[in-house]
Amino acid sequence: MTEFKTVRGMRDFLPQEAQTLRTVEARTRKVAELYGYGEIITPVVESYELLSAKAGDEVRSRMFAFKDLGDRDVALRPEFTASVARLVATSMRNEPRPFRLFSVGTIYRYDEPQKGRYREFWQSNFELLGSNRPEADAEILMLTNGLLEKIGLKNHAFKIGHVGVLRGIFSQENVDESIQSTVMQLMDKKQYDDALETVQKARVSERCLKVLRRLVELKGDKILDVTDKIEECIKDYEMAVAATRNLREILKLARQGGCNAAMTVEAGFERGLEYYTGMIFEVYVPDLNIALGGGGRYDRLIELFGGAPTPAVGVAHGLDRILLAMKEQKSGLKGEETKKVVIIPIGDELRGEALRISQKLRESNLSVEVEVMGRKMAKALEDADRRNFDYAVIIGEKELKEGAVVLRNLKSREQNTLKIEELKKRIK
Amino acid sequence: MTEFKTVRGMRDFLPQEAQTLRTVEARTRKVAELYGYGEIITPVVESYELLSAKAGDEVRSRMFAFKDLGDRDVALRPEFTASVARLVATSMRNEPRPFRLFSVGTIYRYDEPQKGRYREFWQSNFELLGSNRPEADAEILMLTNGLLEKIGLKNHAFKIGHVGVLRGIFSQENVDESIQSTVMQLMDKKQYDDALETVQKARVSERCLKVLRRLVELKGDKILDVTDKIEECIKDYEMAVAATRNLREILKLARQGGCNAAMTVEAGFERGLEYYTGMIFEVYVPDLNIALGGGGRYDRLIELFGGAPTPAVGVAHGLDRILLAMKEQKSGLKGEETKKVVIIPIGDELRGEALRISQKLRESNLSVEVEVMGRKMAKALEDADRRNFDYAVIIGEKELKEGAVVLRNLKSREQNTLKIEELKKRIK
Repeated sequence: MTEFKTVRGMRDFLPQEAQTLRTVEARTRKVAELYGYGEIITPVVESYELLSAKAGDEVRSRMFAFKDLGDRDVALRPEFTASVARLVATSMRNEPRPFRLFSVGTIYRYDEPQKGRYREFWQSNFELLGSNRPEADAEILMLTNGLLEKIGLKNHAFKIGHVGVLRGIFSQENVDESIQSTVMQLMDKKQYDDALETVQKARVSERCLKVLRRLVELKGDKILDVTDKIEECIKDYEMAVAATRNLREILKLARQGGCNAAMTVEAGFERGLEYYTGMIFEVYVPDLNIALGGGGRYDRLIELFGGAPTPAVGVAHGLDRILLAMKEQKSGLKGEETKKVVIIPIGDELRGEALRISQKLRESNLSVEVEVMGRKMAKALEDADRRNFDYAVIIGEKELKEGAVVLRNLKSREQNTLKIEELKKRIK
Repeated sequence: MTEFKTVRGMRDFLPQEAQTLRTVEARTRKVAELYGYGEIITPVVESYELLSAKAGDEVRSRMFAFKDLGDRDVALRPEFTASVARLVATSMRNEPRPFRLFSVGTIYRYDEPQKGRYREFWQSNFELLGSNRPEADAEILMLTNGLLEKIGLKNHAFKIGHVGVLRGIFSQENVDESIQSTVMQLMDKKQYDDALETVQKARVSERCLKVLRRLVELKGDKILDVTDKIEECIKDYEMAVAATRNLREILKLARQGGCNAAMTVEAGFERGLEYYTGMIFEVYVPDLNIALGGGGRYDRLIELFGGAPTPAVGVAHGLDRILLAMKEQKSGLKGEETKKVVIIPIGDELRGEALRISQKLRESNLSVEVEVMGRKMAKALEDADRRNFDYAVIIGEKELKEGAVVLRNLKSREQNTLKIEELKKRIK
């Protein structure tokens, strides 16, 4: 018989890991609530046409795409944004702006599996739709910062840019849109020389090349200082100047809003996705060389999905990566502690009584397991010890005649006979 | 431009519905905790071989099956049990028995969409592995009852049977296993005449046919009474008698454990899946003609997946159907109430201050939205009213000079100027 395994790139979460993931998920939901983001749940399976509409070649080529039994072209979602855009363009079309929408769940991409990267992975996704103002961008940075703080991660830092700086220069130099996209993708891969060469071929001015060479070097974590330098560098390009000022305003507002994490502005920073139109960012911890989250502004996307023009800014957080960062930083997340109790009936005729008492204790928010293996007391206690239970309730015929049971504290080894109705008070 | 839609059979949950689903999901997780079931999270995509191993023809023919980009035969899970069996047979192979395992998430079947039935649907799944004793079966009934109570559903009722009754008769009559399965499936579809005809063709004794005709009529909600009648009816079939006594014991234990819902025992009740070996059940509410959950005992399944022989009993609950039942019964589920506050800066230069105050208020567990549309106060207040906010904090230059803001109670229309640090106390 073949041994069954998970499909390559897929993973199981056993109880301890699953609990951490669910706690992180709950914190993302709490942040959504605190910032007024309404949760939406969209299907994992969407039409291929929808998912591929703005995915970009790279994502598109790695989708889990197939035909369903009705011969429809479908795929597993490689991100949440297309589904959100679909909703905003259809069911939510007539709702008043702004929308704040939140999603959390699994996402599918056929990437080469590696540390922190799976083919099924977990994301939380926040999108603020309807506002083109810098306080909206600042809010997305703030809530990302707030989430990582709530999870207990330390020393996280933002890397921030603005696609409007380069796009502004290129527009004024009349560089073709498709060449712009190629350049952005090269920049995303840090292939600055290739990027510059591509620009050069597009016959831009000498001045432009000089500006670009200087620009990709500009970065720093003093936001006023570095944005001043960028503005000085690109001062002849009006749209790029506006973008730089927009970025400075966003960062100032985020700081005022309590986003205290380190922020490094990089003029040459780009993200792979084509649909960004403004501020873009990623967030890292020093212990891990992969982004825990990233996002930015995409003011034209909703139109492309058939919706009314809707400026938007959003972020996706990688929960698997956050889990990995927590492991690296050895940061634990405590949920509520629930005391664990095992109930051991001495003899089969007391099983019903064991079940009855188990129910009473659960009403007091205790986690209660009844011995269901029919084991002798010593064996059952040994098992409870190994599994780190707090208390054992032992039900014997003699005590039961007096309405009593034996309560054993498995940590202190203390043992008492007491009335059943006293159990709730004594277990804590 | 085509309007994008969900794929047929798939659905979106908009914020209000999503919140109800997540609350129900949280209750299933709470029940798991109270009963000591550890959550496991397995992938949506599993190997076709695993998922089809014991699925039965009907489920197998309706799977979302496809090849991934590495040419692997995969499918979207049509149930949780195969994944649980995989884990128990592999990663958890050496863990001591019993296991109590819980899963919750989406499941995929290409069924004809109808009321309460989607092609992507939500289930919570509980499995107790390692015990063949009636208190284990009783626990599964108890926790199902506990879950529906926690959700606030009323008048739910169990329909209960035991596959060992018919199987016991057939074994003693030397009816072929495959014919037994055909009969069970016909019984599941309530085609009793066809079932009896099939049995007749298998050349069973006259006595057997007489017993069967009587048996399919036997049902009732007095568990001692009806199990006595069944036992009387099948008294010549030793294994069937043992099954009936096992069922009676389970039901008595469940009652002692506080499972107070109505229970109807039906001797002729069968479930579609072939792998059951003992007690089987479904749970209904009168308002809805589809089962909210169902399960039973399957003692041979884990072996079939390559694991050590492991008796097991489990249940799956359909969350979409539970949501539908809640709607029919107009039963609301209250989560924690979080007060909703909007912060309105009068003028762009006060946006940073608005963000700063928003952060302070979130620390007090308030849901806070900052006005990000740059609207005038009257307009922003109107929007907050319509969206049912509790409070507005208005930030004006004059008050701010004194470290104060205006707090407006949107329900009572009361309005006060107060110090920023007093806000937390005053909003409740």
